[in-house]
Amino acid sequence: MDFKEKYDFYLKEFERILACFCNDIDCRPDVLKDSLKYSLLLGGKRIRPVLMFAVADLLGLERCKLSNFALALELIHTYSLIHDDLPEMDNDDFRRGKPSNHKVFGVGNAVLAGDGLLNTAYSLLLKECRNGMEYISAAQFICDCAGIYGMIAGQSADLLYEHATSFNENTLDFIYENKTGKLLTAPVVVPAILSGGRCYSELKNFGKDLGLLFQIIDDILDVEGSFGELGKSTGKDKIEEKYTSVGLYGLDGAKLRADVLAQRCRTVLEGVDGDSEFLLQLVDFVRSRKN
Amino acid sequence: MDFKEKYDFYLKEFERILACFCNDIDCRPDVLKDSLKYSLLLGGKRIRPVLMFAVADLLGLERCKLSNFALALELIHTYSLIHDDLPEMDNDDFRRGKPSNHKVFGVGNAVLAGDGLLNTAYSLLLKECRNGMEYISAAQFICDCAGIYGMIAGQSADLLYEHATSFNENTLDFIYENKTGKLLTAPVVVPAILSGGRCYSELKNFGKDLGLLFQIIDDILDVEGSFGELGKSTGKDKIEEKYTSVGLYGLDGAKLRADVLAQRCRTVLEGVDGDSEFLLQLVDFVRSRKN
Repeated sequence: MDFKEKYDFYLKEFERILACFCNDIDCRPDVLKDSLKYSLLLGGKRIRPVLMFAVADLLGLERCKLSNFALALELIHTYSLIHDDLPEMDNDDFRRGKPSNHKVFGVGNAVLAGDGLLNTAYSLLLKECRNGMEYISAAQFICDCAGIYGMIAGQSADLLYEHATSFNENTLDFIYENKTGKLLTAPVVVPAILSGGRCYSELKNFGKDLGLLFQIIDDILDVEGSFGELGKSTGKDKIEEKYTSVGLYGLDGAKLRADVLAQRCRTVLEGVDGDSEFLLQLVDFVRSRKN
Repeated sequence: MDFKEKYDFYLKEFERILACFCNDIDCRPDVLKDSLKYSLLLGGKRIRPVLMFAVADLLGLERCKLSNFALALELIHTYSLIHDDLPEMDNDDFRRGKPSNHKVFGVGNAVLAGDGLLNTAYSLLLKECRNGMEYISAAQFICDCAGIYGMIAGQSADLLYEHATSFNENTLDFIYENKTGKLLTAPVVVPAILSGGRCYSELKNFGKDLGLLFQIIDDILDVEGSFGELGKSTGKDKIEEKYTSVGLYGLDGAKLRADVLAQRCRTVLEGVDGDSEFLLQLVDFVRSRKN
């Protein structure tokens, strides 16, 4: 299988799990059920589940052990997008080429859809806790990544510095590491935890660098991409005077930084015992992605 | 100790636990930390932790085993108030006599504060999961009460029927059972689970009835109470044409229903082996509360 086939293989595996999961959602009233499913089934790259499955294969861990962790992570990611798109947050009317959750269901229902997804993610993780201590550790790792010392800290700092006139590298690193990085570290580290800690620190560093790379490419795409390619508004960062890696380092500087991070990701992978070909290609895919 | 002394005893025990917990919150940026603490330390009756401690005493369970469960429940309750007060939800500018979270920190930060509290509640619950299967069951019970088949379903239905012109008893029961009832059932059932299931169904029914009673009294106070007593706006239900138990049964009908529910609560307690005096008085306190 070439890279694209392998990506699709993991993607389809996750889409099947997600479809079953969505099919079982049976809450009332309908607007709650519909708003949850709407955002979960909007599509997207599903890079977190794909990463998780690929790292499981690298470490020789059965992927089926990760289904609920992959779901939980995608639910947390989806809730964060719904709340992030709200008018008083990032104020995005489009997500993946479709109207954002609050444009379809209203702000009140979008707040509740986000809350509901976050809660349901923990329902899945608590179920996994019954399987033993390493499963509890994995659930706690995701919780830490998503929480007030992780993603939420990054979102809060992002909001705080939205219209800031002064800005430095430390602040940008803090925001990117937490807002994007933490939730991309989790899918890489969870399989390591479930494998008894194999390559834990190496994979943690890999996840952190990949997360930074991912966010910097987002910044570059906001300048160079189009709505047609991205499915969301572009040029927003500049309009909102938002400080990004492009604002801080310039377009060429940001690209250079992306190259350095991609190289660091490759170096980690090359040191891990196992077939890392797909993950190496994934790094290139993230570096050169157009959406 | 009379009822008030005993209530204060449990309340102070919880306030000490909460103060330690808040003292340890050390997230960045400051606005995130401040907004979390602001709502957690607004005071209030803390009826959920008090209930949990009282039921623990009734069942002969050490209260210290419940610290993190009580905290988690109060965090979930507090997050739900922050999101509920948002302009596109219940639109409340005041909470416990002070400006609501979004009036102080803005809507964006209030959304994140709520998300942060919900996530932190699960961080506490996941820690408890390490203590054994019954702790995992207790955490799952709280999660179910808070989630899309519990409180969030109630909030969603509440929003849906906000301006409804037709309304029936079933819908009202669904909203009250889920929106208010579930999170008042949890503190009563968690000690039962940790006691190996002692009086599980009786206490579950008790919690459900107490929750309904609590909400009906809220409706009555919205008509009869004052801002000075309640620390929040009154008469809102009528202004917003919101269907409540008072709207459905009339003021006298709602009071009658409250009496029936209070009596049902007492009957359950009288059937439980143990010293239920405080809980019996708590039922009367909820029935006759002015805030």
